[in-house]
Amino acid sequence: MKIAVLPGDGIGPEIVAEAVKVLEALDLKLEMETAPVGGAAYEAAGHPLPESTLNLAKSADAILFGAVGDWKYDTLARPLRPEQAILGLRKHLGLFANFRPAICYEQLTHASSLKPELVAGLDILIIRELTGDIYFGQPRGRRTAADGHFPGAEEAFDTMRYSKPEIERIARVAFEAARKRNKKVTSVDKANVLETFQFWKDVVTEVHKDYPDVELQHMYVDNAAMQLVKAPKAFDVIVTGNMFGDILSDEASMLTGSIGMLPSASLNDKKQGLYEPSHGSAPDIAGKGVANPLATILSAAMMLRFSLNQEEAARRIEAAVQQVLAQGLRTPDIYSDGTTKVGTAQMGDAVVKAL
Amino acid sequence: MKIAVLPGDGIGPEIVAEAVKVLEALDLKLEMETAPVGGAAYEAAGHPLPESTLNLAKSADAILFGAVGDWKYDTLARPLRPEQAILGLRKHLGLFANFRPAICYEQLTHASSLKPELVAGLDILIIRELTGDIYFGQPRGRRTAADGHFPGAEEAFDTMRYSKPEIERIARVAFEAARKRNKKVTSVDKANVLETFQFWKDVVTEVHKDYPDVELQHMYVDNAAMQLVKAPKAFDVIVTGNMFGDILSDEASMLTGSIGMLPSASLNDKKQGLYEPSHGSAPDIAGKGVANPLATILSAAMMLRFSLNQEEAARRIEAAVQQVLAQGLRTPDIYSDGTTKVGTAQMGDAVVKAL
Ligand SMILES: CC(C)[C@H](C(=O)O)[C@@H](O)C(=O)O
Ligand SMILES: CC(C)[C@H](C(=O)O)[C@@H](O)C(=O)O
Repeated sequence: MKIAVLPGDGIGPEIVAEAVKVLEALDLKLEMETAPVGGAAYEAAGHPLPESTLNLAKSADAILFGAVGDWKYDTLARPLRPEQAILGLRKHLGLFANFRPAICYEQLTHASSLKPELVAGLDILIIRELTGDIYFGQPRGRRTAADGHFPGAEEAFDTMRYSKPEIERIARVAFEAARKRNKKVTSVDKANVLETFQFWKDVVTEVHKDYPDVELQHMYVDNAAMQLVKAPKAFDVIVTGNMFGDILSDEASMLTGSIGMLPSASLNDKKQGLYEPSHGSAPDIAGKGVANPLATILSAAMMLRFSLNQEEAARRIEAAVQQVLAQGLRTPDIYSDGTTKVGTAQMGDAVVKAL
Repeated sequence: MKIAVLPGDGIGPEIVAEAVKVLEALDLKLEMETAPVGGAAYEAAGHPLPESTLNLAKSADAILFGAVGDWKYDTLARPLRPEQAILGLRKHLGLFANFRPAICYEQLTHASSLKPELVAGLDILIIRELTGDIYFGQPRGRRTAADGHFPGAEEAFDTMRYSKPEIERIARVAFEAARKRNKKVTSVDKANVLETFQFWKDVVTEVHKDYPDVELQHMYVDNAAMQLVKAPKAFDVIVTGNMFGDILSDEASMLTGSIGMLPSASLNDKKQGLYEPSHGSAPDIAGKGVANPLATILSAAMMLRFSLNQEEAARRIEAAVQQVLAQGLRTPDIYSDGTTKVGTAQMGDAVVKAL
């Protein structure tokens, strides 16, 4: 079992080091190979996703990814910016199914912006389509407007699109996931305005015929953004397109108050996957040894479960994380009175000990 | 001064009736003419925005709008659905600037999903571009995919686009509004992925040169969806495109916990405007006399201010609304222990009395 380890920028290297430590402690005979990605790769090789990194990722069973991005790369031409690495990996590996759980840990409920009764026990799963939509649709660019409000003016444009098989496969992923949970899928669209999402709604409705045991609800994206604030626990599985999923999954993760705890997985149809924390590269705290490695460690657990078929090892990691929380250990982002503040490496060590 | 009164569907007629009552009590010699819109117009005239309603709207100085929509119209062909009326009015009247305040009233702070300290005193203004973007971009439709992941498959598509003058004018609206407030504008984009929003960011940055006294911040839409939950009071004015604005303005309104209190205005370059509550048609409570008319009454105040140049009358309405809240009067949506529950008409009467 081969793992491509791509630490990236900012706090990426620190948090990935702790996840690697945990994986090594499990003694699973994993082959791990590290390569630069994002800004780090731009510095080392002139490109955020060098050929060699992409080839390593393609040849691996799974990718353990840290985070990419830093203000200092903001002035680079777009194809050279760190986030192109993540878009490139998604595209070249066909990682169409993004799993973003939003879970509120019992011990951290108080950290949420929301009132405790609204988020206590929250456990929703957002499934975001990750290789289609306006993220990759062609044509796109700048041109002179031929029509519209200001014909003759300079304009920029992008293309939103979804094909039937793209919608079908992500819908199936969502219904299958819901079967293992509370059997409810909310499909988020904007069918009242967009052709793409009327089609999305139609296709999801069709696929649903194969899953009569799962409840299907349709919701407009603006309403979903509201309901997530109003009553997040009413959701079980949310499935939506790439752009709406980007917005809603971030909104949902913030509801928990502890985004430093949330893992994510992005899978293709061969169960190859990229695993990364839901949070970003946090350049402001990079190198200080204070970042929370738990989201990355939990991403490694998802990797064992989804791509490496090691359910038991995944559970051991998850139980160990629960245990360090129960012990009262907290990195600064989740610290509160009465708990013990620890750094990145100490947290990783504590998880290893708890295994 | 001529006002087109378009009550619409669901609770629309009830809440608009109260706003009309309040306007009449001001004795401003307003000429008010009522016409059907949305589902009601479809029933009466076979179209959600009949020619006669559109002509009335065009000839008026302002439109007082209730709400449109009901589940029973969901199976109609898209051009006949109630929401086409609102899209049609925006388009035909060129109502490009949508003002959506998210205000947390002191007496209602406890009703928010968020902890009181995060929302007490909240006062943000979302300015959403309303006649461009993927809402109206052509081409759109269904076709056979020529490329992408599944060439040959059926697909649906839409076009996102913004021209330079469209971005410039909404940016100016935002900077001007910020000048009268806390002098901070957050422009929300997705420049890291979309050509349209890289252009948006570039143009807003350029326009900003004319407003050196206003602070400009750029934020990605996914981050904005998070920051609204995490620290909403950090915002003053948010300006963004039609689709991101749809999502974020609804998310922001829900933060206040009392969407039944929030007005909105949609203006064109001649200061003609459409004024409507931020909430929807709520068919489930229609006809029961329990809907909250205050958002519509406050929309009428915005109408007096923005389109009819009656600042003093606007303030009188706003003060009257504050007074009925201080008196402890509450419709069911904002009711809590220790306050007095009233119906739609009673609430309207109380505002008239407080004038
Ligand atoms: C970095 C960016 C391109 C990316 C996205 O928008 O998909 C990020 O926000 C994410 O959600 O993984
Ligand atoms: C009804 C719908 C077309 C509309 C929109 O998306 O603009 C509504 O959600 C709004 O925000 O006014």
